[in-house]
Amino acid sequence: MTHEIAVIPGDGIGQEVTPAAVEVLESFPIDFEFVEAEAGDAVLAETGEALPQETYDLAASADATLFGAVGETAADVILPLRTAVDSFVNIRPAKAYPGVDAVRPETDLVFLRENTEGVYSGLEDRLTQDVSTLTRVVTESASKRLAEFACDYVAGDEHDGFSIVHKANVMRETDGLFRDTVRDVAEEQGVETNEVLMDAFATRVCLDPEQFDVVVCPNLAGDVLSDLAAGLVGGLGLLPSANIGPERAVFEPVHGTAPDIAGEGIANPAAMILSTAMLLEYLGYEAESEAVNDAVEATLEEGPRTADLGGDASTDDVTEAIIDRLS
Amino acid sequence: MTHEIAVIPGDGIGQEVTPAAVEVLESFPIDFEFVEAEAGDAVLAETGEALPQETYDLAASADATLFGAVGETAADVILPLRTAVDSFVNIRPAKAYPGVDAVRPETDLVFLRENTEGVYSGLEDRLTQDVSTLTRVVTESASKRLAEFACDYVAGDEHDGFSIVHKANVMRETDGLFRDTVRDVAEEQGVETNEVLMDAFATRVCLDPEQFDVVVCPNLAGDVLSDLAAGLVGGLGLLPSANIGPERAVFEPVHGTAPDIAGEGIANPAAMILSTAMLLEYLGYEAESEAVNDAVEATLEEGPRTADLGGDASTDDVTEAIIDRLS
Ligand SMILES: CC(C)[C@H](C(=O)O)[C@@H](O)C(=O)O
Ligand SMILES: CC(C)[C@H](C(=O)O)[C@@H](O)C(=O)O
Repeated sequence: MTHEIAVIPGDGIGQEVTPAAVEVLESFPIDFEFVEAEAGDAVLAETGEALPQETYDLAASADATLFGAVGETAADVILPLRTAVDSFVNIRPAKAYPGVDAVRPETDLVFLRENTEGVYSGLEDRLTQDVSTLTRVVTESASKRLAEFACDYVAGDEHDGFSIVHKANVMRETDGLFRDTVRDVAEEQGVETNEVLMDAFATRVCLDPEQFDVVVCPNLAGDVLSDLAAGLVGGLGLLPSANIGPERAVFEPVHGTAPDIAGEGIANPAAMILSTAMLLEYLGYEAESEAVNDAVEATLEEGPRTADLGGDASTDDVTEAIIDRLS
Repeated sequence: MTHEIAVIPGDGIGQEVTPAAVEVLESFPIDFEFVEAEAGDAVLAETGEALPQETYDLAASADATLFGAVGETAADVILPLRTAVDSFVNIRPAKAYPGVDAVRPETDLVFLRENTEGVYSGLEDRLTQDVSTLTRVVTESASKRLAEFACDYVAGDEHDGFSIVHKANVMRETDGLFRDTVRDVAEEQGVETNEVLMDAFATRVCLDPEQFDVVVCPNLAGDVLSDLAAGLVGGLGLLPSANIGPERAVFEPVHGTAPDIAGEGIANPAAMILSTAMLLEYLGYEAESEAVNDAVEATLEEGPRTADLGGDASTDDVTEAIIDRLS
């Protein structure tokens, strides 16, 4: 079976870490067909469109998409790409690695972020000179779909249920619906949950990240709190993510285009390669996925390391070291 | 001139730390008239109302209000109290103290949080079985009022302008209006600003809190990011806050009712007493305000300390030590 993989390097270091990720995937005897497409600031400047229709269509039809990073046009690219695969959940692991400086080295969290609605609805108006509004949308159906995914995600021995993070004391109807729906689905499925207000979560995760494990939350809460967790593990540099839809998915590192080092061949490919581990798992290659995770982890610990981690290795050196550790 | 101060102890340790704060204020030769009123879970259970009309009216007419803490009914009490004084800004300093364990001891931030709108509009609907909505409101007038306050706040030598934190890449119209309005006011007044996306702020403040100083942001962003900063300085326990309106204001510690230790006389009164320092400054007693801040800081460093900070002093011991240091 051939897996068609859309490859969208984007801007800046996206151009460097995306080929590294493809190399890692190519090192497995799996039948991938890679199809490259453009998106981001550069293609906007050239063509007037940050996300050309061909790229959108490709993501909407490929089995999976590897997305690097884009600059100023990030929202114009990543939000439609999520829509292209009907992604209802964004999986964001935030884990500290041995050998990498972290504010909270004991952090090991996974955010399951609602990926379609909330304040990301796009429903905004300037009603008068003075007043602008945004319609925050929360549906039972999206909350349910997320909750069912979360229940599957925590099935097995590794996790004891999940935390539901929300702000239902203020957003009573919308986050109330979110919280109740997620809780009810979990209850039906016999999955344990606990509830934490979004603001309280922000305090508590700094004080003691180990009290949390899997976190299920609305869209913006997931955006901000996963970035907070990124801060606790030492920055966005090492975090992968997966935008999962019912039939396809988009995988991307959480980091940006790093314009300060772009073009020098010294970008750390770890987050992008960890994103391929998520892709492998998504396609059913669990052993391969684990092998990639282990190889990245070993390389972070033992080197070679890129400049962001105090080393002087190139993107290629690190990629090769990871591939060597796979075999 | 007599200053009428409404005193609302609330529930749990609110009942213990609020009298401590009143004692501190009484130690100054200032003509205060304290009027006590009820709010919170206990009065809800007794009377069916978490915020009795008399309490609301008192806050709406007193020169300033000292508010302790309430339990489950927090949103039903604090949100109307903010409205009672037409509070357009919530000042939330988040500062690490010597002698207190902190994840990031170099943290010294002040959040100026919009305090009237955003997702706190109360405009929610369940449109259908499936769909609920909330209307997020951002006005030019509220953004302007906040920006003008922020410009005054940073005037003088201590601050080099402020950061505007928002999510205008997604909430283009609403946070766009917020950002543009705040930036324009600052520009007119010659105040330097920089802009940070809310999610990026969450990462960056963990990695290096010293890159920020005064942070101006919408309501929910202020709620969550100030609680994040609380996590960095060691918890909510020591943070005061001020809800400022055009003619009156409500001062409250950021911590809750601490039901686990309520009634034992061992609650740390520091945050509540720091809130009186904000009250003194608000009423124009700058020297007295500074004296209280210094006395609390010295007591945190040198003791006596309550149990939360590893000591065994009572609320009264700590309060007396602080008052002793005032003279
Ligand atoms: C670029 C932006 C629209 C996006 C988001 O807010 O979801 C980003 O912050 C992310 O988390 O992937
Ligand atoms: C209790 C709640 C409504 C309140 C808020 O969200 O503003 C609290 O978290 C705070 O920050 O004072």
